[in-house]
Amino acid sequence: MTRDDALALDAADPLAPLRDQFVLPPGVIYLDGNSLGVLPKATAARVQQVLQQEWGEGLIRSWNTAGWITLPQRVGDKIARLVGVGPGELVVADSTSVNLFKVLSAALNITQADAPQRKRIVSERSNFPTDLYIAEALARERGFELVLVEPEDLPGCLDANTAVLMLTQVNYRTGRMHDMAALSQAAHDAGALVVWDLAHSAGAVPVALARDGADFAIGCGYKYLNGGPGAPAFVWAHPKHANRFWQPLAGWMGHAAPFEFTPGYRPAEGISRYLCGTPAVLAMAALECGVDTVLAADMGALRLKSLALSKLFADRVLSTCPGLTLVSPTDDTRRGSQVCFAHPEIAYPVVQALIARGVIGDFRAPDILRFGFTPLYLRFADAWDAAEHLRQVLQTEEWRRPQFNQRNMVT
Amino acid sequence: MTRDDALALDAADPLAPLRDQFVLPPGVIYLDGNSLGVLPKATAARVQQVLQQEWGEGLIRSWNTAGWITLPQRVGDKIARLVGVGPGELVVADSTSVNLFKVLSAALNITQADAPQRKRIVSERSNFPTDLYIAEALARERGFELVLVEPEDLPGCLDANTAVLMLTQVNYRTGRMHDMAALSQAAHDAGALVVWDLAHSAGAVPVALARDGADFAIGCGYKYLNGGPGAPAFVWAHPKHANRFWQPLAGWMGHAAPFEFTPGYRPAEGISRYLCGTPAVLAMAALECGVDTVLAADMGALRLKSLALSKLFADRVLSTCPGLTLVSPTDDTRRGSQVCFAHPEIAYPVVQALIARGVIGDFRAPDILRFGFTPLYLRFADAWDAAEHLRQVLQTEEWRRPQFNQRNMVT
Repeated sequence: MTRDDALALDAADPLAPLRDQFVLPPGVIYLDGNSLGVLPKATAARVQQVLQQEWGEGLIRSWNTAGWITLPQRVGDKIARLVGVGPGELVVADSTSVNLFKVLSAALNITQADAPQRKRIVSERSNFPTDLYIAEALARERGFELVLVEPEDLPGCLDANTAVLMLTQVNYRTGRMHDMAALSQAAHDAGALVVWDLAHSAGAVPVALARDGADFAIGCGYKYLNGGPGAPAFVWAHPKHANRFWQPLAGWMGHAAPFEFTPGYRPAEGISRYLCGTPAVLAMAALECGVDTVLAADMGALRLKSLALSKLFADRVLSTCPGLTLVSPTDDTRRGSQVCFAHPEIAYPVVQALIARGVIGDFRAPDILRFGFTPLYLRFADAWDAAEHLRQVLQTEEWRRPQFNQRNMVT
Repeated sequence: MTRDDALALDAADPLAPLRDQFVLPPGVIYLDGNSLGVLPKATAARVQQVLQQEWGEGLIRSWNTAGWITLPQRVGDKIARLVGVGPGELVVADSTSVNLFKVLSAALNITQADAPQRKRIVSERSNFPTDLYIAEALARERGFELVLVEPEDLPGCLDANTAVLMLTQVNYRTGRMHDMAALSQAAHDAGALVVWDLAHSAGAVPVALARDGADFAIGCGYKYLNGGPGAPAFVWAHPKHANRFWQPLAGWMGHAAPFEFTPGYRPAEGISRYLCGTPAVLAMAALECGVDTVLAADMGALRLKSLALSKLFADRVLSTCPGLTLVSPTDDTRRGSQVCFAHPEIAYPVVQALIARGVIGDFRAPDILRFGFTPLYLRFADAWDAAEHLRQVLQTEEWRRPQFNQRNMVT
């Protein structure tokens, strides 16, 4: 593979025009769409419209006239198409962490009703920490035990004590992707429920929650959905579970008739009971623009390009950068939309040196260099060039410069 | 009081220039700043800056370079000045409902540790419903009882069984304002904790949480703080309580070291442990602009103007609109920044007829006409004119038109 080969792939790429949907700063190769997606061109105008017409002129009337009140469902229906569930089954609300609290609470409620002897929440030790923290807090409060194991040990520890299997489909540190269908089946075979976090999969890989047997799912708006920094998250409950229990964040937007202002809680039918407070209108308008950029593409075609991009990058780095260990799967069926390498000592300064060159990936403690591949806006030449920058940073020992070794960065 | 008198008051009003901070649609008298504050002029430019420079160009780097990561504390410190607490004691996060869940959970944790026989959460029957729903859900889960009484019966039912007194300082339906100092003292005298919802008081009336003995407080960003539709909310815990327990929404932003990505939860010191998921950057930037519009004024002077505006309006309506019953206190020390009337049959269509005339208040089921007075941008002539419109709607029976009687509005 030469740079000319990469350019030829770009010239032949039917998805190349999708890049025009985005604002991309010059001189940047952005390999961090899995941490914060880029700005869609449509977003600034849409947010201005919300600010100036809907809020500024319409004021409170816009809850009706601009349809603010149904934004959680409207944007939710769009995301539903990306994760393989039906309209009316998914809503946008709150943060990923808060939504996990809701669905995990609901799953524990179901367990307590149907199989009270089941007292274990099983997850992966290297699941994203906020998922583990929320599970830890709920386990403490509700008398459950949080059991953390390595991915290969998951099927073996699902048993008659398991209440819930809680997993993030694509691991944030390694890019390793779980087999959702197989693990959901294993959980069900053991009599347990399964909760999937789609933070690194919605908009990045084809997801089929209903087909693959998920019970609950949550996901993030600001990564591959390009919703903007701190965008609202989403939540889905299988229709067979949605009406069984309240979730404990029983706010007025989840009430069957919020504007009757009655003192007793009566949950809405279906997924709307997973709403809580007043919808975040500005942020949801921005998120909708981001979701639209993904819906403009065919997810199957995006997935093929994503795999080709990440394979090109991984192959180049493996052949030119001795000392880095690939920690992402080479198997296309097990790799999400990112490639990660480990280095026991210099992962942090190497990432900083790359960022200074305009190649933006990120460091994940303690030893990971993480590179996300977003086929909506990345070119094969970008993947080739990023690998070449990495080779140069290592060969020239540019990473030794003091400014790349000051640990003052939060992300 | 004639209209010329009202114009004279405006001409002499030292706060009149504050109105220039806002975008106000022509032909509108906006008496609904207690439901959704108006758009500050600074907001559109600031949000564009966040979109185009910070997100579009800075991308993930802006968590550090644009200070996104400390927005919850930075905007929180500004709100702290409006509610009488110190810097570092208050953060912006999530929604009012979610924040109530956090502080009420923490208060119940403290009770369970210190006085486990206390099993009652006491509140006002006409507290805002979302507060009651959250309390109902927590009471169910944690084995507490939610006791709802009329405001005058509150002191008498605080006793050795009371865990927490949970109140909204200014009632959303009547504008009646509780005596925070007296009720906090009564709760403490009974050995209970007190949680205050400041939804209708932050930015509207002087609030002194620390002086008046509050234990926890939450509040809303999109009402008198002018933060925009669905703006994030805020949360405060007295420093003596903040470190005692986790709150159950133990997300990564409340962790002592979120970017160490360790699997076990270790809460941050102080109020930062009341953060949960990733901060809503766009929405917080808009909220900061709104908070700045309030900080531009002296709260004592705002309060005096607010009381004068609401008194002018109430007096005019009482003298010209027979059939409406004033349900807001006439006592200045007991009235928030709103005036409400009741009518047993026609409250809904009268409010709709007023809205059609550009006088925007709102209906609150079952029988309330609610009018909020925001002294930052309302003029005495506005209050006079609003009362005159109300008189005309009633006298002409304009409210009988069919379009004002279709109950298709959600707010």
